[in-house]
Amino acid sequence: MSLKDKVAVIGVGCCKFGENWTQSQEDMLVEAAYDAYGDARIEPSQIQAAWVGIQYASTGMAGIGLADPLKLYGIPVTRCENFCASGMDAFRNAVFSVAAGVYDIVMAAGVEKLMDAGSRGLPGTGGGHPFIGGVSAPGMFAMAANRYMDKYGITKETMGKVAVKNHYNGAVNPKAHFQREVDLETVVNAPMIASPLGRFDCCAMTDGAAVAIICRADMANKFRDDPVYVKGLGLSVYTGQPNYDPNFDYLGFSSTQHASSEAYKQAGVSNPRKEISFAEVHDCFTITEILNYEDLGFCNKGEGGKFIEEGISSIEGELPVNPSGGLKSFGHPIGATGVRMIYELTKQLQGRADGRQVKNPELGLAHNLGGPGSVACVAILGW
Amino acid sequence: MSLKDKVAVIGVGCCKFGENWTQSQEDMLVEAAYDAYGDARIEPSQIQAAWVGIQYASTGMAGIGLADPLKLYGIPVTRCENFCASGMDAFRNAVFSVAAGVYDIVMAAGVEKLMDAGSRGLPGTGGGHPFIGGVSAPGMFAMAANRYMDKYGITKETMGKVAVKNHYNGAVNPKAHFQREVDLETVVNAPMIASPLGRFDCCAMTDGAAVAIICRADMANKFRDDPVYVKGLGLSVYTGQPNYDPNFDYLGFSSTQHASSEAYKQAGVSNPRKEISFAEVHDCFTITEILNYEDLGFCNKGEGGKFIEEGISSIEGELPVNPSGGLKSFGHPIGATGVRMIYELTKQLQGRADGRQVKNPELGLAHNLGGPGSVACVAILGW
Repeated sequence: MSLKDKVAVIGVGCCKFGENWTQSQEDMLVEAAYDAYGDARIEPSQIQAAWVGIQYASTGMAGIGLADPLKLYGIPVTRCENFCASGMDAFRNAVFSVAAGVYDIVMAAGVEKLMDAGSRGLPGTGGGHPFIGGVSAPGMFAMAANRYMDKYGITKETMGKVAVKNHYNGAVNPKAHFQREVDLETVVNAPMIASPLGRFDCCAMTDGAAVAIICRADMANKFRDDPVYVKGLGLSVYTGQPNYDPNFDYLGFSSTQHASSEAYKQAGVSNPRKEISFAEVHDCFTITEILNYEDLGFCNKGEGGKFIEEGISSIEGELPVNPSGGLKSFGHPIGATGVRMIYELTKQLQGRADGRQVKNPELGLAHNLGGPGSVACVAILGW
Repeated sequence: MSLKDKVAVIGVGCCKFGENWTQSQEDMLVEAAYDAYGDARIEPSQIQAAWVGIQYASTGMAGIGLADPLKLYGIPVTRCENFCASGMDAFRNAVFSVAAGVYDIVMAAGVEKLMDAGSRGLPGTGGGHPFIGGVSAPGMFAMAANRYMDKYGITKETMGKVAVKNHYNGAVNPKAHFQREVDLETVVNAPMIASPLGRFDCCAMTDGAAVAIICRADMANKFRDDPVYVKGLGLSVYTGQPNYDPNFDYLGFSSTQHASSEAYKQAGVSNPRKEISFAEVHDCFTITEILNYEDLGFCNKGEGGKFIEEGISSIEGELPVNPSGGLKSFGHPIGATGVRMIYELTKQLQGRADGRQVKNPELGLAHNLGGPGSVACVAILGW
């Protein structure tokens, strides 16, 4: 049996991402949800069940993290937490419930409040996974960058071009955190975070929320003429301590390889390079986007540098990657990012992505990578 | 469309519950999972996807909280968190994925490590939901007990009989935390925790893990002759701050009412008092079990006291409740409890509950209540 074409996205919403000091987690969820209700032309009372991706408990636990701000009482609301893939995993579980025939119309939401998290503690201070045996995220991905540079001979300039591309795309995205271009010189000369990754190689801390409204495919045309359909959904976990694994070579993530393989199989995609029209991928660091090209099968191992250098992933290229601006420019509110990617895929597929619109897309791919490569989630949407 | 009879439980496992100082979260998950693998007669490699219920991030975040100890790499693993209903919500999402036709054989697990949680902080100290506006769980349920005693005239002795019953049942359960009987005099004279709730009116802190193996109903007989089937699954959220809601009367929980209503509808149950053979319900406090009788439709409003007094819920009664010993005696490792209830329902329905076996059960109901009544989950299993 297949998931393909059983479930449709009929509305999406997103708040303005940024350092939202004047908005609480609840404020952002309300903004994103009412954006999505309006987009789907439904009333809140039509939602039969909901899922929310939140990584840090300090920003709201359990289903009530979504139910309280939206007054979604008397229905099921589940919190999914899967590191940076929390939001897309919430979407995945929401889709399964509709495909199972249990609900007709459901919501998938994602949110993260990182600024001003308050006196109960900044994220991560109260426990949580000891991230990569004490190595920070920049430190972890810096090791990957050094290894990749050594193995395949790319330079800081090649990685920097990912930042330049994503800031170029995000500069015209009214909901992006950083709506401005950067030049390559600025990127490569930026203050060092974890060598060789400078400030512009790293995504920032961002607040935000995003919402998708999902329904049975056979009902979708009641709500709009241009629903998009779920073609495939893959998720895969790998160890939380990859750097303790002697087989881990820092040159790619098996979680992304497995998750995309599952999604491609469901969607019937055999040649992603040709069949995927555009992608939103997890560019938490510039090196990560280059590794993603390879792990997602957009190019062969070691050719990720060429992929960005030749402009294939630029917005006018053959396979635009992160037309929204990506995590680098749109921002990365952890639990929200996966659902924000569903938002972007839907807008692009419907030709509603304004200044950042890619040409005639048929299949869009979204990809989250979480933890030190511990989890990846891939969604494919299309006509 | 209906969920009914699309999905079967083919194996269950559970570690010994208790203050498991010598076992880590990982140790308990391994013990429970291999118990379940053996019960289902499957190899670990046959698991295609998994879900895990964990409430506190300090005991392991994300899908790797389950994947790392079981080496479930290369497949999807999702962490669900929904207060004390985390485990049953993990089971619910696992069931949906199979009913959706996406996977054939999946795992639902639940775990919580509360003893010796370590230097990263005891649960809840690092953030999380400000529980009921600063009121502790015993304080919250004590208000319900006082209100109920005032309204319906029950005594501490009536509530105490819930503890006596559940300890009587659990005394012969080899995996229960407290395998001993208590008499009513001990219960009513126990040290006060939050008036009128004494020490024996409250469940304790317990470590534990439980696992269920789930598959497509049409495959179940390949694995065993006596699989049990999922008949209904309901979940409902209510506000995280019910005591701020002027309509909240402390005499019952609308989350339980809505969740059971959804599950009954799916299972085709119109008269739970007659159709449900036995139940495992959320007796976090003795008063809670009495409120559950009413919220689950086992008796009318105000008749919960009579229900326990008349022995209807005793193991030899017409509708045995908590034959396992319940949270009171089996213990309540938060994320594990919901899956532990699925374990008990399965064992009972298969006639494998040894000294605590109820007579000829056909339909079993499991019920979790989480937060200050903020979420409830109900599962109905049967032949």
